[in-house]
Amino acid sequence: MRMTDLIIKKRSGKPLSKGEIEFLVTGYVSGEIPPYQISAWLMAVYFQGMSFEETGYLTRAMINSGKVFDLSSLAGPLVDKHSTGGVGDKVSLILAPLAAACGVQVPMMSGRALGHTGGTLDKLDSIPGYQSVIPEDLFRRGLIETGFAMTGQSKDVVPADRLMYALRDVTGTVESVPLITASIMSKKFAEGAQSLVFDVKCGSGAFMKTAEEAEKLAVSLVETGRSLDRKIVAVITAMDEPLGRKVGNFLEVEESLACLRGDGPEDLMEVTLRLTAWMVVAGGIVPTVEEALDLCRSRLADGSALDRFLANVSLQGGDREALLERENKARAAYSLEMKADEEGYVESIDSFALGMAGIPLGVGRNKTEDAVEPLVGYELLKKRGEPVKKGESLVRIWSESQETGETVRDMIRPAYRIGQKIPELSSLILKEIKAL
Amino acid sequence: MRMTDLIIKKRSGKPLSKGEIEFLVTGYVSGEIPPYQISAWLMAVYFQGMSFEETGYLTRAMINSGKVFDLSSLAGPLVDKHSTGGVGDKVSLILAPLAAACGVQVPMMSGRALGHTGGTLDKLDSIPGYQSVIPEDLFRRGLIETGFAMTGQSKDVVPADRLMYALRDVTGTVESVPLITASIMSKKFAEGAQSLVFDVKCGSGAFMKTAEEAEKLAVSLVETGRSLDRKIVAVITAMDEPLGRKVGNFLEVEESLACLRGDGPEDLMEVTLRLTAWMVVAGGIVPTVEEALDLCRSRLADGSALDRFLANVSLQGGDREALLERENKARAAYSLEMKADEEGYVESIDSFALGMAGIPLGVGRNKTEDAVEPLVGYELLKKRGEPVKKGESLVRIWSESQETGETVRDMIRPAYRIGQKIPELSSLILKEIKAL
Repeated sequence: MRMTDLIIKKRSGKPLSKGEIEFLVTGYVSGEIPPYQISAWLMAVYFQGMSFEETGYLTRAMINSGKVFDLSSLAGPLVDKHSTGGVGDKVSLILAPLAAACGVQVPMMSGRALGHTGGTLDKLDSIPGYQSVIPEDLFRRGLIETGFAMTGQSKDVVPADRLMYALRDVTGTVESVPLITASIMSKKFAEGAQSLVFDVKCGSGAFMKTAEEAEKLAVSLVETGRSLDRKIVAVITAMDEPLGRKVGNFLEVEESLACLRGDGPEDLMEVTLRLTAWMVVAGGIVPTVEEALDLCRSRLADGSALDRFLANVSLQGGDREALLERENKARAAYSLEMKADEEGYVESIDSFALGMAGIPLGVGRNKTEDAVEPLVGYELLKKRGEPVKKGESLVRIWSESQETGETVRDMIRPAYRIGQKIPELSSLILKEIKAL
Repeated sequence: MRMTDLIIKKRSGKPLSKGEIEFLVTGYVSGEIPPYQISAWLMAVYFQGMSFEETGYLTRAMINSGKVFDLSSLAGPLVDKHSTGGVGDKVSLILAPLAAACGVQVPMMSGRALGHTGGTLDKLDSIPGYQSVIPEDLFRRGLIETGFAMTGQSKDVVPADRLMYALRDVTGTVESVPLITASIMSKKFAEGAQSLVFDVKCGSGAFMKTAEEAEKLAVSLVETGRSLDRKIVAVITAMDEPLGRKVGNFLEVEESLACLRGDGPEDLMEVTLRLTAWMVVAGGIVPTVEEALDLCRSRLADGSALDRFLANVSLQGGDREALLERENKARAAYSLEMKADEEGYVESIDSFALGMAGIPLGVGRNKTEDAVEPLVGYELLKKRGEPVKKGESLVRIWSESQETGETVRDMIRPAYRIGQKIPELSSLILKEIKAL
């Protein structure tokens, strides 16, 4: 087999076989196939696409390039969720203990904040003492004892994806649906999940800006999963304004606690309940999403979801007393408010601009090596559709310096649009695509 | 400027600017831009193409990547010809002395045989003593004294093309019209030609199999040349059967001598005269192609073209006495004939198959490092449209062993198709595209 022939085959729009994809991935990882051939193939994939079956072969070959977590000795069902990333997206912190309380085991391996999107690990690290990256045995213990555990992605898992992503990043081949699909799916399956629920975000604060793009990715995820005999649900959700009201690492832990007590913002709860319910269905706990939603609501009401969360905090070294003490109190030193210039209704909030405002604050970062701050962030006092009086506060910002706070206020101001009519509000759940 | 951005720009179908193309070429040659970024860009070019202006920028940047022969002190006009390669294509050997006899200076830098196509340098090397690769000062002297000189492509000329071609070869990006255009044109202009005539071959024995492909390349060559303010003529010629009757290194020198004496095969003379005439027009010697054809015919008739050829042989170290003595006599040791199985007319001769038959004989080679043989080859005793009796010889083969001769006969046999009707014969000149 010659790599040049495989490039030409793909260039001509033909799908590669299982053996050809395996040859390509193992050859790249071993160094036998040089990066300049892989990048030409990646660009050919960008233009010609891949069939779902072919994407499945790529996913499988990438999984086999490194360590595969074998969690099959656990009781299961093992179901994980992946989000394509948004602003104020703290869903994982609520969903994991809630799904666990419903009887699903959630082996959650998360990432860190980058660019305009936050990171679950950074949020968890704002809990006093919490170790967001833990050894494998503790991770297993967490799954057994509390039904879920949180950790970072292991370097040994899917080395092919790390190599290939680095190459895609500098060769203009990031924006390819089959390549994105294989990258996401290979990591999740290598980490031990049996079934997956995807939150494909769509809108100004998401990577997929249009409904068309989001649906293309959702279909690719579901159909590739189907070709691998996996249960997959992709929920397309709106990301036109930040999810919930709080954005910031500890601020988002607080808002998650509120949700687990049944006191969360409506938009955040809608998305979280729907995603968790699909995990419960994919895990085979109950047959319908309606029953799963009822089960989720009762696990919130009886406090068992909150218990799971707090049990996990203790298991991963966190100080639950300190956490609860600091709740709604611990804030960065400087605080300022952004006030409305005019009366009306909040017509829209540009979530991309709000996400970017998190970078100078220290909620997020531009480069992976930058540090983040636990106690900075902002609270949206007014969200879409809410009435506003002139001079009323729209956003409260907490920062490490007065200057940064002012900079961030200037960044956030143009993101708020005030209109004279009540805007039409609709469900954040835009579409659901399933292979069950 | 970041190479990643240039890849994305091209991927999105936008033309790169002069500065961007220069950045890319100089960065690649200096090693600052890694091959994996260049190959991704090459594949994006494969899919998105390049404007003629952009192809001109690429041509110019490639020329400037290495040594440029400055022949502007010569009287001129300096005009060269390039053929996309065919079987039995000995046009250069006749055209160069003929154009020189008409008053054009022809700085001809040629290549060697590869695959099914022959190489001018290999043919010249079959002349006893002839040095087909000569130092620059002798090359200049040849241009001044005999109006033309023959040599190989210098390694210092257009290093960007050597690097890029090697990369294209292993990344499935050879078949791109703008890349082919820049590769051909950059070498010819760096070698000192002011104007160019192209023989774009079309048919089974050519790289361009269809009229559409050939025209696309011809238009690209002419329009890119126009964007560089150069005079260019592209003549699309049929390559459905080998050109002339003799294929082999010394055999083709012999047939060229016959042409220079006014005694060449009709098809070969038609193509050669047309191409030479356009060189005479592009060089500004006479204004119309009809006048140029008349001038060419008179230079053949008065023997001055043959004189130029023989003067060049002497200048480049060849033994003209030995050449003329061996003419029509020197042959490889073994000879055999392929005979007709049936009566009829030669309907077609697959020139690709005949070209490939040259490889085991030693007319050509599979790999650049292989040697060729001077005295092997074959003569087509019957060409398209000629009547054939059963048992009559179609082809005479000369080989270095009986076994090879038989192998080659077996390769050639299916290439001949005998029919019962006289096939329609038409001009080999299919189309002419000009920027004058």
